[in-house]
Amino acid sequence: MRMVYLIGIGPGGPEYLTMQAVAALRQVDVFFILEKEGRGKEGLAEARRRILATYREPGSYREVVAPSPGRPPAGEAYLDVVADWHQRKADLIAGLIADHLAPGQTGAILVWGDPALYDSNIEILHRIHRERLPDLRFEVIPGITSVQVLAARHKVPLNAVGGDVLITTARRMEAGSCEGHDSAVVMLDSNAAFRRIDPDGLDIYWGGYLGTEDEVLMSGPLAEVGEAVAETALREKRRHGWILDIYLLRRRRPAS
Amino acid sequence: MRMVYLIGIGPGGPEYLTMQAVAALRQVDVFFILEKEGRGKEGLAEARRRILATYREPGSYREVVAPSPGRPPAGEAYLDVVADWHQRKADLIAGLIADHLAPGQTGAILVWGDPALYDSNIEILHRIHRERLPDLRFEVIPGITSVQVLAARHKVPLNAVGGDVLITTARRMEAGSCEGHDSAVVMLDSNAAFRRIDPDGLDIYWGGYLGTEDEVLMSGPLAEVGEAVAETALREKRRHGWILDIYLLRRRRPAS
Repeated sequence: MRMVYLIGIGPGGPEYLTMQAVAALRQVDVFFILEKEGRGKEGLAEARRRILATYREPGSYREVVAPSPGRPPAGEAYLDVVADWHQRKADLIAGLIADHLAPGQTGAILVWGDPALYDSNIEILHRIHRERLPDLRFEVIPGITSVQVLAARHKVPLNAVGGDVLITTARRMEAGSCEGHDSAVVMLDSNAAFRRIDPDGLDIYWGGYLGTEDEVLMSGPLAEVGEAVAETALREKRRHGWILDIYLLRRRRPAS
Repeated sequence: MRMVYLIGIGPGGPEYLTMQAVAALRQVDVFFILEKEGRGKEGLAEARRRILATYREPGSYREVVAPSPGRPPAGEAYLDVVADWHQRKADLIAGLIADHLAPGQTGAILVWGDPALYDSNIEILHRIHRERLPDLRFEVIPGITSVQVLAARHKVPLNAVGGDVLITTARRMEAGSCEGHDSAVVMLDSNAAFRRIDPDGLDIYWGGYLGTEDEVLMSGPLAEVGEAVAETALREKRRHGWILDIYLLRRRRPAS
């Protein structure tokens, strides 16, 4: 049997790991690292180094590093493009596990945030188990998501009393996914989609580089601060070469 | 200045705390504990005892315990009932802080899961700061939610590729909140509301007492396993005297 932990590391700093994640980290023989090109690459590598330096002795583990398969830009055939990308990632990871993890050993993949939210590794490990390595077992260790750090930093609940919370993408928000929900957290917004919705009655709680030393927070009525948030996001993106930002849109309730 | 940490403790076990939460715990002079009557009371008290026993020396902190104001059953005037309940909780906690936390000291309230999700303490501390204790400062420490433990245990992503995730209540699901969303996590379902929606095309991933030694998991097509899940929830509830359960409803996508 070969065991692989999918470990949610939260937003980057070692302090966001749970004790369960640290305990799992300490059992790992081999860390599998898929290095992405482009935005955030340095940040992820640096976060990983700090986490391993905090919780492991140097020389007590191996790192197996490979370039992550590039994801072609998704046009019309979005789901097909993603399916193909996942297949190539599965092929790569299956090969790395087969070559570098002996039966009886324990591997790990470190995942930003939580492996269950906007990450493909759970599906990929199921596929590898099913199609390639029947002796593979894996466990998922939850991590703090940027959604939670956003709420904590702004000191704002995600849900209104009795209400629900939608976690959605900018693409889906522009297609109307937020309708009927008074709280929505929007991810993967590369072009300030909040400027293209009706701001009336909405507050925005925005955060960039959450949980890192570059963290930036802004909030207020969307109609009043929307443009300033968009300018800040653009300025920060130019300064760092990349940005990871999310926001909560909350409909104000009339006082009862 | 008086500081209060709202610390998310996750689903109960000490292993779910983040390093950040543990670091905050260790600075605390006074833990404020509002004991609820009824379901889950023993579980919460036991979880708190285990967490403090794991991370603090006996005698190095104080506990201030008070009965939590009861929440009257919400009928028509749901929001008014909740607002009144929050006011009574705010009055109580403000009094406890004023009486038991000296300026310069640090207090804490331990919260199941994450303080930003289905918990009233963030709003209550804002209110106390605004209305009663201007020298009060507070910080929110995120914790692992039962939503995340559910996904980790079932090894299932919360979102489908490119899709969104709705976190909702049974009450709102029965009013149609899930329409248009292919992933929904349902909380606060005391009466198996999943039996009263159209099960066609839906999978259910259900968990009770998540993250505890009493954890129970079930999953499958809702049309096939829904009744068995409802029976299990009822049986477990009778056995323990209470239940805390949640579930993910996921719409199956046609293979591409």
